Amino acid sequence: MNGSLTIIGLGPGDERYLTQEAEDALATAEAVYGYRAYLDRVPARDGQSRHGSDNREEGARAKAALGHAADGAKVAVVSGGDPGVFAMAASVCEEIEAGPEAWRKLDITIVPGITAMLAVAARAGAPLGHDFCAISLSDNLKPWGLVLKRLDAAAEAGFVTALYNPVSQARPWQLVTALMRLAEHLPGSTPVIFGRAVGRSEEAVTVTTLAEASGVRADMATLVIVGSAETRVIARDGQAPLVYTPRAADTVTV
Amino acid sequence: MNGSLTIIGLGPGDERYLTQEAEDALATAEAVYGYRAYLDRVPARDGQSRHGSDNREEGARAKAALGHAADGAKVAVVSGGDPGVFAMAASVCEEIEAGPEAWRKLDITIVPGITAMLAVAARAGAPLGHDFCAISLSDNLKPWGLVLKRLDAAAEAGFVTALYNPVSQARPWQLVTALMRLAEHLPGSTPVIFGRAVGRSEEAVTVTTLAEASGVRADMATLVIVGSAETRVIARDGQAPLVYTPRAADTVTV
Repeated sequence: MNGSLTIIGLGPGDERYLTQEAEDALATAEAVYGYRAYLDRVPARDGQSRHGSDNREEGARAKAALGHAADGAKVAVVSGGDPGVFAMAASVCEEIEAGPEAWRKLDITIVPGITAMLAVAARAGAPLGHDFCAISLSDNLKPWGLVLKRLDAAAEAGFVTALYNPVSQARPWQLVTALMRLAEHLPGSTPVIFGRAVGRSEEAVTVTTLAEASGVRADMATLVIVGSAETRVIARDGQAPLVYTPRAADTVTV
Repeated sequence: MNGSLTIIGLGPGDERYLTQEAEDALATAEAVYGYRAYLDRVPARDGQSRHGSDNREEGARAKAALGHAADGAKVAVVSGGDPGVFAMAASVCEEIEAGPEAWRKLDITIVPGITAMLAVAARAGAPLGHDFCAISLSDNLKPWGLVLKRLDAAAEAGFVTALYNPVSQARPWQLVTALMRLAEHLPGSTPVIFGRAVGRSEEAVTVTTLAEASGVRADMATLVIVGSAETRVIARDGQAPLVYTPRAADTVTV
């Protein structure tokens, strides 16, 4: 019997963000692998084994799940947000390419989910309404100079920028350094959004400016969106402001 | 009574891609506005009025929906994919900023959805597994020179690039020109994915290379992902290849 591996995006928080496709995939899995914090969001089911692991063990988790699937089981790997954005789908592909021929024969399905930048953007308005990019600030797997090069390119070309993995205990200075780098290209008034734990009970969204952003606390659960020179803020009495990037950029000098 | 406007992302296709949050929001709306092709995906409900309009009428649609909400109704605007990515959320924000004070007092909620690049990426593997950007190739609202500048920046800095709105009847040459521009920076072997109508019955996904991509047909329902120099293809006997961008870019020269 040919096993299968389904990599499922859980979206940003509770089950409101699950798609029907993700629910169906979770219901039919015989084994579920994932980072413990994500696995905890999935209700336990009779007859379904659960395999939690640490945040930094993506490669080992992918190998264990692939091996289990190659034994003939219907295996699921869960990922927060979307599995294809700085998450488990790339990790599984890396292990398939490096692994035994049997892993290439598995049925592999990827179930997309709401990635953090879409959830944070929705809370703030429409900051990703025009051309944008997504950059991981983790320099565990790429040189910091490459991050700086991409920040320069994004700001110079007028992209809105979503910053994933802005801060961790082992990487305390990257976010502030990135914001300072963007401030070399963009006005201090550029809108910046910090979205922490969006979609969960401890959700907190802060709208600030690039000049003030270094003073806002962020952690591993935070996604930061830095506007372009086009991004605007609509103040509203008694309500959170709306931050958006207009669809038109017909006044930008090329 | 204070009206409300909820802008709902339907995801790429059928109801499998709806989140629970989107379903709940559709169920409680008194009026639903949208481009006809998207409205057709939403089942009719007793007591709920439906207001379909043409694809190019975003501004008029947003104004009509805001006016209806300001009259005290619970109004929904539906959008394919995610409403915040080249879609209705920015259009509504533009009209709120330009419109009467009453529109700033409305309860505005944006319900995120699976945007096309996530759906196409999931079908192909994990091409967005590392830093990436999204560019609309429509030059209706921005000069073509700005598109070229952003393509140059994206390719030079090593972003994977998702191309939205690649082709329309009125814009037949933009996609081929954009692919040629990217080919000035990237090897001809760079993987390119064409995803058409992903999530719907007529879905078609084509994996090709930058050297061959100009020969692939695309239309308004197509989303194109052009890899970076790091993007890889895993060939698989009897199955579609897996296209992915590794998490690590530690060999890239800065």
